[in-house]
Amino acid sequence: MSFPKQVRIVEVGPRDGLQNEPGPIIPTETKVELINRLAAAGVRHIEAASFVSPKWVPQMGDAAAVMAGINRQPGVTYSALTPNLKGIEGAIAAKASEVAVFSAASEAFTQKNINCTIAESLERFVPVIEQAQQAGIRVRGYVSTVLGCPYTGDIAPEQVAAVSRELLDMGCYEISLGDTIGKGTPLKAKKMLEAVARQIPMEKLAAHFHDTYGQALANLYAVLEEGVAVIDSSTAGLGGCPYARGASGNVATEDVLYLLEGLEIETGINLQSVVDTGHWITRELGRHNGSKVAQALGECSQ
Amino acid sequence: MSFPKQVRIVEVGPRDGLQNEPGPIIPTETKVELINRLAAAGVRHIEAASFVSPKWVPQMGDAAAVMAGINRQPGVTYSALTPNLKGIEGAIAAKASEVAVFSAASEAFTQKNINCTIAESLERFVPVIEQAQQAGIRVRGYVSTVLGCPYTGDIAPEQVAAVSRELLDMGCYEISLGDTIGKGTPLKAKKMLEAVARQIPMEKLAAHFHDTYGQALANLYAVLEEGVAVIDSSTAGLGGCPYARGASGNVATEDVLYLLEGLEIETGINLQSVVDTGHWITRELGRHNGSKVAQALGECSQ
Repeated sequence: MSFPKQVRIVEVGPRDGLQNEPGPIIPTETKVELINRLAAAGVRHIEAASFVSPKWVPQMGDAAAVMAGINRQPGVTYSALTPNLKGIEGAIAAKASEVAVFSAASEAFTQKNINCTIAESLERFVPVIEQAQQAGIRVRGYVSTVLGCPYTGDIAPEQVAAVSRELLDMGCYEISLGDTIGKGTPLKAKKMLEAVARQIPMEKLAAHFHDTYGQALANLYAVLEEGVAVIDSSTAGLGGCPYARGASGNVATEDVLYLLEGLEIETGINLQSVVDTGHWITRELGRHNGSKVAQALGECSQ
Repeated sequence: MSFPKQVRIVEVGPRDGLQNEPGPIIPTETKVELINRLAAAGVRHIEAASFVSPKWVPQMGDAAAVMAGINRQPGVTYSALTPNLKGIEGAIAAKASEVAVFSAASEAFTQKNINCTIAESLERFVPVIEQAQQAGIRVRGYVSTVLGCPYTGDIAPEQVAAVSRELLDMGCYEISLGDTIGKGTPLKAKKMLEAVARQIPMEKLAAHFHDTYGQALANLYAVLEEGVAVIDSSTAGLGGCPYARGASGNVATEDVLYLLEGLEIETGINLQSVVDTGHWITRELGRHNGSKVAQALGECSQ
């Protein structure tokens, strides 16, 4: 066991959290305020927007306006998801500090989700990554379904390792390993991570675990033991995977921070400020706060 | 790391889960059906009732009727909480297979909760345990607030160890370590357990963790790594501690079973049957199902 001394939280609430939010389009100023509040709480890496067709993801249709509206803080990374060339052009124009591309470890998931093979999905990202690099922007790679596929079940750890390695070789500086449907358990998470870590140094790996089956914190604890030092999470547990049955999706940032504080791992983030931000945004959206820590601590009145 | 091959689940839903349920008194036949369904699902240890004054805990006022109504299965332990001599007499008359007594690791909690010192609370149990032993009934000991007190905060692991040791010396065959307010995190849980395990063999210890801060499964994973092989949990996450802010209390049996299945640890319990039981009882009570696994898996229609 060798827990990292510090963990970098990648807050995905403004993008992964809001993109599937049902109901009316969330106002740009609400998204901007969410991002500004998170930065003020000490979050240093925020996935702020997705430059994707508003036909497909209406909630992200104002990506450029969101990026323009943020009160940028020094030392904070404001990243954007860029699924294609149009996306990377938009993200560069909007001065994203970093962009992200995504594939999956499951062929069936990739087919149903973006209608191509994994290899084809990776090929499409070659020019995207090239453009980003020409603009001097770092690219993060996401791999979905690393602990299970909604269509085919189990995923071989070696398959996760292979896709991750390809994204790294294509130029991604970090690979975020996504348990998209939240079906993983600690042993499975460890075995998957060990297979990937044989291909990629641990410091280039991030854990992006969903809490659909309530296992996310246990799984994070297991991979922290292995030395993972980057964790994706979403304030108030915003978001979720439309492919996974059940209400919950992303693990809540507040619950992760509470876990990390108990492990004496530094994040530089003020837990109560994130709790307050989570209460504020869930009130704004009229939705349930998915963080147990937020419910237990309540909102600070000051 | 040495995970146990088998874990015994102590299902506390019918007692710890229902005792503080607000609203009308739950019918005896509902409690009996819950217990019978759990036994049919393969649960081998069920805390079925509390022989306590109905003035204090109205929901447990029908303890004798519940114990009489159960369709007893061979190999299943039906235990009852017995806070005093009147309680143990009632439990013996009702043919409880086992009884339980409880103290706490926090002086402040014991004072506010039962208006005496820890030493006095233990003294009161001497004749209770004696009577149980004379009747040939095993006694389980609960220690509350092992990972934090709602009034005084942190609790020294040595204090937990000392109280646990006293209960063992008084005749308890097993000590259940309760994180009553759910504030623990894995490192804290490990340190507490290690202190207790220096006084008591690991096979006589059980983990009774609440999920108020969402940490219960991570904490359970951490103590499973240490070799704990008995876990208290509550179907659908029924119950909770009235002293802890926030909605959730007991960790859900379904979520624990899912974790254990992933760790390839046997329990002899059918997960889907417990999921179905949880959906049934929460419908009966008109309350939220606190198990994420139950929400994700849904109810089996057959």
